[in-house]
Amino acid sequence: MLNLTEPTLLLDETKCRNNIAALVEKAMQANVSLRPHFKTHQSHEIGRWYRELGVSKITVSSLKMAEYFAADGWNDTTVAFPINIAELARINRLAEKIKLNVLIVSSESVAGLKNLQHAVHAFIEVDNGYHRTGVSPSDYQQIDQILEAITKNPLVHFEGFLSHAGHSYKATSKEEILRIHDESIQCMVPLKERYTSRYPNLILSTGDTPTCSVANSFPGMDEIRPGNLVFYDLTQCKIGSCSREQIAVAMACPIVAKYPERKELIIYGGGVHFSKDSLTINQQTHFGQVVHLSNSGWDTKETGMFIQSLSQEHGIIHASAAQMQHLHIGQFVGVLPVHSCLTADAMGGYTTLTAKKINRL
Amino acid sequence: MLNLTEPTLLLDETKCRNNIAALVEKAMQANVSLRPHFKTHQSHEIGRWYRELGVSKITVSSLKMAEYFAADGWNDTTVAFPINIAELARINRLAEKIKLNVLIVSSESVAGLKNLQHAVHAFIEVDNGYHRTGVSPSDYQQIDQILEAITKNPLVHFEGFLSHAGHSYKATSKEEILRIHDESIQCMVPLKERYTSRYPNLILSTGDTPTCSVANSFPGMDEIRPGNLVFYDLTQCKIGSCSREQIAVAMACPIVAKYPERKELIIYGGGVHFSKDSLTINQQTHFGQVVHLSNSGWDTKETGMFIQSLSQEHGIIHASAAQMQHLHIGQFVGVLPVHSCLTADAMGGYTTLTAKKINRL
Repeated sequence: MLNLTEPTLLLDETKCRNNIAALVEKAMQANVSLRPHFKTHQSHEIGRWYRELGVSKITVSSLKMAEYFAADGWNDTTVAFPINIAELARINRLAEKIKLNVLIVSSESVAGLKNLQHAVHAFIEVDNGYHRTGVSPSDYQQIDQILEAITKNPLVHFEGFLSHAGHSYKATSKEEILRIHDESIQCMVPLKERYTSRYPNLILSTGDTPTCSVANSFPGMDEIRPGNLVFYDLTQCKIGSCSREQIAVAMACPIVAKYPERKELIIYGGGVHFSKDSLTINQQTHFGQVVHLSNSGWDTKETGMFIQSLSQEHGIIHASAAQMQHLHIGQFVGVLPVHSCLTADAMGGYTTLTAKKINRL
Repeated sequence: MLNLTEPTLLLDETKCRNNIAALVEKAMQANVSLRPHFKTHQSHEIGRWYRELGVSKITVSSLKMAEYFAADGWNDTTVAFPINIAELARINRLAEKIKLNVLIVSSESVAGLKNLQHAVHAFIEVDNGYHRTGVSPSDYQQIDQILEAITKNPLVHFEGFLSHAGHSYKATSKEEILRIHDESIQCMVPLKERYTSRYPNLILSTGDTPTCSVANSFPGMDEIRPGNLVFYDLTQCKIGSCSREQIAVAMACPIVAKYPERKELIIYGGGVHFSKDSLTINQQTHFGQVVHLSNSGWDTKETGMFIQSLSQEHGIIHASAAQMQHLHIGQFVGVLPVHSCLTADAMGGYTTLTAKKINRL
């Protein structure tokens, strides 16, 4: 039994390792290279759980994160975020040490690399329908412009095309996820056909958590990069990427006040712990769902209790008077997070069910 | 000129010190004791700016924060959060060193203090209309029950009544803030009348940023505890607590991509930097408003550009093609935050306009 005193992010190591193992197996079966995104866990220790299963290449979302993982021996890293040329000094330091893949979204950002001192590898980001960043896959003029800019800099090696179907997070069913997956692949494949004669080793990199969870094949793709599935969360559960049983993290928060007359239970656990991402379920806003803690972790059964609002340190849980009778002040409840990436970032570390502390960046 | 490379939380020390000085002056004029809330800045250095003006008592929202400030000599601290009895060991350690005021919302939480080893001081929290935590000010039965529980524990000294009119944050005008202020005071004053004969030294503590910014008098109140006004933010500006010129913090974020055709500018600066609190202005969701950075800080003029959505590391700014012509990749823009408490918490530190780094908890 854990000795909990304050809001704590619990990590079920078994579930987490199972999520990782299932992904490694899927990539092998599908014959694609796996370059998992480490932005969700941001932890040396959890990274090693991937390494134990043969993973040697990673994705991160900042240079700082690339540095952090380089310090633990990860030497083939893609920073899947449009290159920030204001950090050129940091890029140079990293590129000296590891194989650093950067993300290019315009020829302007290639121009910003003119004072590069060490070789970097460049992916061109392709917008496969998410419309956040990236070049339209049919805008060959812009792609050619970028390739020309890359060619002019002998220290920038073109690696291939990368996409992130972030709109799959807004899907409402497995079918919709699979449709997005297919569309995304169809955006990418023609690029390989078009540029393979000039760049015979170019690779196509794709794959977010929803599509990598639901799809079993990635035709034409060389590499997948899902991240969130290391933990999963309620958002992924709602759209069909995972079961509640696969969610590998839960917050544990102490009850500090009870208001049965207004069906509210107050926990110590607020926006600074959970972050403020929410889900709408049955027309109600959920910032997390309450589960009962047990000696061996948490019971995944739905309790009907959920966080209905968050202030900085307070969480307000919707609960019936009858439910509250079995809950006392000082007791801890579990809360499955809406968005594990942001909750883990807010908490800054993990406690496993065997009370092991796991640090993160 | 600052040498910026990544998302940075800029602090205008002059504005911040002016906000503090205005508050100290107001408390003096109004003849109320000032016990500022330090949860917004959570910084030894900024705390000292208060101390330089004679402030000696503080409010925090966690025991951890109380410990952090105790380490810098703050020895009279109210933890304005319903007492978390799971942290009794921490309470004991702190209560040995400083005058520790805790917040009681039920007799159940007083019962949780039975193994107390050092004296603590207790405020009963009164719900003055916010309906988050606290006892109804007219529920004398419950108040008497709590007082009885307190009396039974010789190490718990009753200090007075405390309220937080958090609903003032949702006000839409100065008039509404003042109405909430009056109602809040009217909730509290009868409590003093009723209990002053038993507890002649009892104090009434109130005061959030909106009411402490707009009101000039606090009739019947002994103490005020605003916190956010050390920095202010767009939320406070919108409801009339402050001017844009008083906002003392701004994020500086580099531009990483431009999409004039869809009027979107992408910055490196996302949910992990800003947090996800938003404001609705002209039926549009704002996660921050863009200002131009200058050599001496930022120009407070409205630019019309705002963050329309945030993912983990990306901020998507609404900007016209014409505006974008003057902005290039790698350049930094300023962003006034929607909720400075959460942004400062997410960023974990400050950079002043003279490039001084200021740490926080």
